[in-house]
Amino acid sequence: METIEFTPTVEQYGWTFGGTAPIRRVRPGTVLKLWTDDAFSGKLRGTADRASRLLDARYTNPQTGPFYVEGAEPGDTLALHFVSIEAARDWGVSTTMPLFGGLTGTTRTATLQEPLPELTWLYEIDSGKRTVTFAAVESEHRLVLPLDPMLGTVGVAPERGEVRSTAVPDTYGGNMDTPEMRAGATCYLGVNVAGALFSIGDGHARQGEGESCGTAVETAMNVTMIVELIKGGAPAWPRIEDDEYLMVVGSGRPLDDAWRVAQVELIGWLGGLLGMGKMDTYQLVTQISRSPIANMVDPNFSAVVKVAKEFLPDVPAYDGMHRHLRGLAAGL
Amino acid sequence: METIEFTPTVEQYGWTFGGTAPIRRVRPGTVLKLWTDDAFSGKLRGTADRASRLLDARYTNPQTGPFYVEGAEPGDTLALHFVSIEAARDWGVSTTMPLFGGLTGTTRTATLQEPLPELTWLYEIDSGKRTVTFAAVESEHRLVLPLDPMLGTVGVAPERGEVRSTAVPDTYGGNMDTPEMRAGATCYLGVNVAGALFSIGDGHARQGEGESCGTAVETAMNVTMIVELIKGGAPAWPRIEDDEYLMVVGSGRPLDDAWRVAQVELIGWLGGLLGMGKMDTYQLVTQISRSPIANMVDPNFSAVVKVAKEFLPDVPAYDGMHRHLRGLAAGL
Amino acid sequence: METIEFTPTVEQYGWTFGGTAPIRRVRPGTVLKLWTDDAFSGKLRGTADRASRLLDARYTNPQTGPFYVEGAEPGDTLALHFVSIEAARDWGVSTTMPLFGGLTGTTRTATLQEPLPELTWLYEIDSGKRTVTFAAVESEHRLVLPLDPMLGTVGVAPERGEVRSTAVPDTYGGNMDTPEMRAGATCYLGVNVAGALFSIGDGHARQGEGESCGTAVETAMNVTMIVELIKGGAPAWPRIEDDEYLMVVGSGRPLDDAWRVAQVELIGWLGGLLGMGKMDTYQLVTQISRSPIANMVDPNFSAVVKVAKEFLPDVPAYDGMHRHLRGLAAGL
Amino acid sequence: METIEFTPTVEQYGWTFGGTAPIRRVRPGTVLKLWTDDAFSGKLRGTADRASRLLDARYTNPQTGPFYVEGAEPGDTLALHFVSIEAARDWGVSTTMPLFGGLTGTTRTATLQEPLPELTWLYEIDSGKRTVTFAAVESEHRLVLPLDPMLGTVGVAPERGEVRSTAVPDTYGGNMDTPEMRAGATCYLGVNVAGALFSIGDGHARQGEGESCGTAVETAMNVTMIVELIKGGAPAWPRIEDDEYLMVVGSGRPLDDAWRVAQVELIGWLGGLLGMGKMDTYQLVTQISRSPIANMVDPNFSAVVKVAKEFLPDVPAYDGMHRHLRGLAAGL
Repeated sequence: METIEFTPTVEQYGWTFGGTAPIRRVRPGTVLKLWTDDAFSGKLRGTADRASRLLDARYTNPQTGPFYVEGAEPGDTLALHFVSIEAARDWGVSTTMPLFGGLTGTTRTATLQEPLPELTWLYEIDSGKRTVTFAAVESEHRLVLPLDPMLGTVGVAPERGEVRSTAVPDTYGGNMDTPEMRAGATCYLGVNVAGALFSIGDGHARQGEGESCGTAVETAMNVTMIVELIKGGAPAWPRIEDDEYLMVVGSGRPLDDAWRVAQVELIGWLGGLLGMGKMDTYQLVTQISRSPIANMVDPNFSAVVKVAKEFLPDVPAYDGMHRHLRGLAAGL
Repeated sequence: METIEFTPTVEQYGWTFGGTAPIRRVRPGTVLKLWTDDAFSGKLRGTADRASRLLDARYTNPQTGPFYVEGAEPGDTLALHFVSIEAARDWGVSTTMPLFGGLTGTTRTATLQEPLPELTWLYEIDSGKRTVTFAAVESEHRLVLPLDPMLGTVGVAPERGEVRSTAVPDTYGGNMDTPEMRAGATCYLGVNVAGALFSIGDGHARQGEGESCGTAVETAMNVTMIVELIKGGAPAWPRIEDDEYLMVVGSGRPLDDAWRVAQVELIGWLGGLLGMGKMDTYQLVTQISRSPIANMVDPNFSAVVKVAKEFLPDVPAYDGMHRHLRGLAAGL
Repeated sequence: METIEFTPTVEQYGWTFGGTAPIRRVRPGTVLKLWTDDAFSGKLRGTADRASRLLDARYTNPQTGPFYVEGAEPGDTLALHFVSIEAARDWGVSTTMPLFGGLTGTTRTATLQEPLPELTWLYEIDSGKRTVTFAAVESEHRLVLPLDPMLGTVGVAPERGEVRSTAVPDTYGGNMDTPEMRAGATCYLGVNVAGALFSIGDGHARQGEGESCGTAVETAMNVTMIVELIKGGAPAWPRIEDDEYLMVVGSGRPLDDAWRVAQVELIGWLGGLLGMGKMDTYQLVTQISRSPIANMVDPNFSAVVKVAKEFLPDVPAYDGMHRHLRGLAAGL
Repeated sequence: METIEFTPTVEQYGWTFGGTAPIRRVRPGTVLKLWTDDAFSGKLRGTADRASRLLDARYTNPQTGPFYVEGAEPGDTLALHFVSIEAARDWGVSTTMPLFGGLTGTTRTATLQEPLPELTWLYEIDSGKRTVTFAAVESEHRLVLPLDPMLGTVGVAPERGEVRSTAVPDTYGGNMDTPEMRAGATCYLGVNVAGALFSIGDGHARQGEGESCGTAVETAMNVTMIVELIKGGAPAWPRIEDDEYLMVVGSGRPLDDAWRVAQVELIGWLGGLLGMGKMDTYQLVTQISRSPIANMVDPNFSAVVKVAKEFLPDVPAYDGMHRHLRGLAAGL
């Protein structure tokens, strides 16, 4: 298999979905070995560092990409399989930022209260022991947590000629911030423009569901992935498949709407796979879907809905694309 | 241990939280063996049955209770431990009802569209094999699903003299519809009135997270539970503890607010247990909380947030009440 | 016309809709001359007074009532015409309360920020000059504003046996907090229980749309009103008619839903009056409705939608009930 | 005064805010005489016409612009004064589109119900008599309504390099759809990029508050406006001033957030003008602000909050810019 390795320079970082020229062209079937910087471009390195001083708000959450996928046309389905996502540093960082996060008034849910304090936490990452260690900044508490690396941001160029900040999740993917985007998962995205123009970034050593304070354990990542293309069949919302689950990630405000679009998309997907009508699928999904919140902090909130494949007859999605990619990955 | 068995007559069914005289007085430490009817009072028994014809909207979701707990005063904490929750029938039922459910306009999220069709699904429950079988009504599909019995509704009398329909979840518990309310769990509720006046009901043979269409696999239940009382310490929102997780159930609209109140309550709870400050706990919860949606269909929506106890040092909640109750349950 | 005068003692104040025995029985056609205390029961009288110290949260927003209307049955329509609403004091008061209001995190839209300061403002009311004077508490600013007296709370007993705090607006009316509830207006409410059991209260010397900080210029009121009963025809949501507008008040969360239910109710009402189909009425309302927000601070938010009667052919609502009541009022 | 007349060709129509090269450069103080096509590019001309057949969803709501304002830099404030907005046709058109509008499930508030029917209404516009005539399509009803011409869309290029569809309203203005944007009003917008790059369009012969069905009485417009530039002082959200009111237009989802940002922006603006503290201004705005909803149908909803200048001491905003522009306009 063709393999491309790529580490962007700071000048090559992508700050938007859409609106950027492709950095490489890749053929379907290509293996990519990419490096992604953390959401702060590596500028927060100690508990005394503050985003408000060190970062330009216009330049957060740098992406690696975009990549032009040969043959991808509007209406097609891009399949991105993550073979491995591994921390490229032995530390990660998280921070509260004024008027950003799930449990504070924000620039969108505006209040007159004083902002929460801006604080920074540094985490030790031990990729060998598979741990990430939390250290409190106001006391001496330390807690050793399991490492669970993932990508917060995976997306393509939006439709209707829009260009969106890498802070935003929407129909085109983007900053969905779901822990389901881990190694072993395949992400399906609808193609809106020729070449799809996908990017990835925003690695998290681990993240709770909801990403309450607004930032996870942010770190640089080494990502190995396989790019595939399915002609036609573009989903309305990002889908994820792993060995256990079929998933949809909806984004919107309020969270109700993120959940609704994900449910409707899942019902359409599952009904098609099972050859079952809308109302019966609605009923089935009612009893079997799981609904973990992804993020409650970005300009759109994101909700995952998922169904266990073990509950379903063997009706492989996309003609078994995920199984095929798992096989390829095993051979790398 | 003192044991009380109770099966209500139809005349004894409770239709509200608050506003009803207690049906029994129980001492803390009592074991209760209760029977609860399903949310339709057992009136939907076949796929041709329709709630709109057979049910009076004022009388849905009957509760068993309320029970007056001796010594319970406003500000206290009621602990309800579920020893076993087992289907009392070999069938369950689910239904769509016009303008009710998560993926339709409702009486609250009003639209001008035609309502979805009213349909009824019958499920076979096999308590021996631990299965519940879905049968489509518009085609021949059948799927065997794992049995996972739970109670949709657990609550006490509300504060401020309010009386709420058993359809509603709020600070006092009520119709939270979370699958976390299963055997092995302890539910902590703040006491608002003398005697607490708790009721339970709305058994589900299983339920997806969100309860998309508005009704789970509704069935009658035999419930064995232990009632305990903790003086003081009333939580603002219902808490659940099982062997693995500390959880809070928030309810509100939009779902954003249900999640927010649950997060803030969890941060307060966890910060107290760990002796850690607000901002550090906010950070920790950001990286470890899980956030499964409970229901998106009731007059208030409900969200669960939970943290795995394995990630935390051994700081038992409520001085080990859950462990104590598990021990008592094991001895029954 | 039969006239009843009534001023409640503090012991007779009503704190809920539903759940309270009627204080008087009135026949349709009766004139009521009532006194209502302010939302703080008159306990805040100076800028140094604080609700958190002087008030019991369980006892806020006292109502005058409930009144049992002879012959009122579930499904009927109660018509309450306000002949005059006049300040019964020469001062009014407004206050911020921690975690209450539209521009702060609340107990429902929970954040981790510090609450806003608790402050109290005293207003001079000059009923002769029709002015109400604002005086800043942090500086010397004074502004003379027009007096525009209204009732924040008008409601009947809820359906389904519920009892709701007088803080809440919903289908039964309640704490809608709209400035449209002024003298000259007729409020139509659906009857849920025998006798309707209506109450009024929460006088405001004036109020902005949204009631941003949570409290208007709260004052005691002398209210003259006429009670009428229309058999059948219960609206789903409160309606208001004055000489210029037909209005509906929807309540819910988020505000989107308050607006949606009000629009759907208005379309049904107007379509019936005009004999016009649903889609045509939807189109017409799109071009002529006005949508002032009522409150963004109560447990449910409220939105008014209204259409000017001058745009419509002469199709009197409720067979000209409002005109009839205006005539009676003119003769008092 | 320098005057520029400009009517775009179809090829010059703008479909986004940002991402488009300027069509003209204008100096501050310039008078612009512009023609704007309707939101359907004039393609819907009869009641049998359907947007779903005649329009490409990527090309709706064409704008006239963008214009590069000499000297405008990020952080500056653009002042756009509308001297006259007059219908350029004697007809207007409105339509329902499947899954678009305020009283239907949409692509964002997804439901499983069937969409509402797609219908088109044609209105007669009589600019002499100042009327616009509604004609029902399912019956013979006709209603003559007052003409009240306005622009649905006024905006500049967004910040952070984003490019947004002309369907969207946000901090940069855009598709706010408020009837307050009529002749005699001055709109203040923060500048995000060199030259500001403003566009206008989406003329409505009249519109209700909320724009319930999703489209107003859409028509082409002749617009005379004056462009001015204020160095610095960029507002966070669009502001509008006319002879009677100071206004802010907030946009977001849910509508709660649109209202919140507008209120916070208004409090900051007013507090600055009056030299009054945050809490006092919060209190004052509580009693005097009016809050008409603008739109409940676009990707973001919009809310207007406004205060009557007659209630305030004479503290002219932007050093009297509006009065200055009114004077210039009177001299044209």
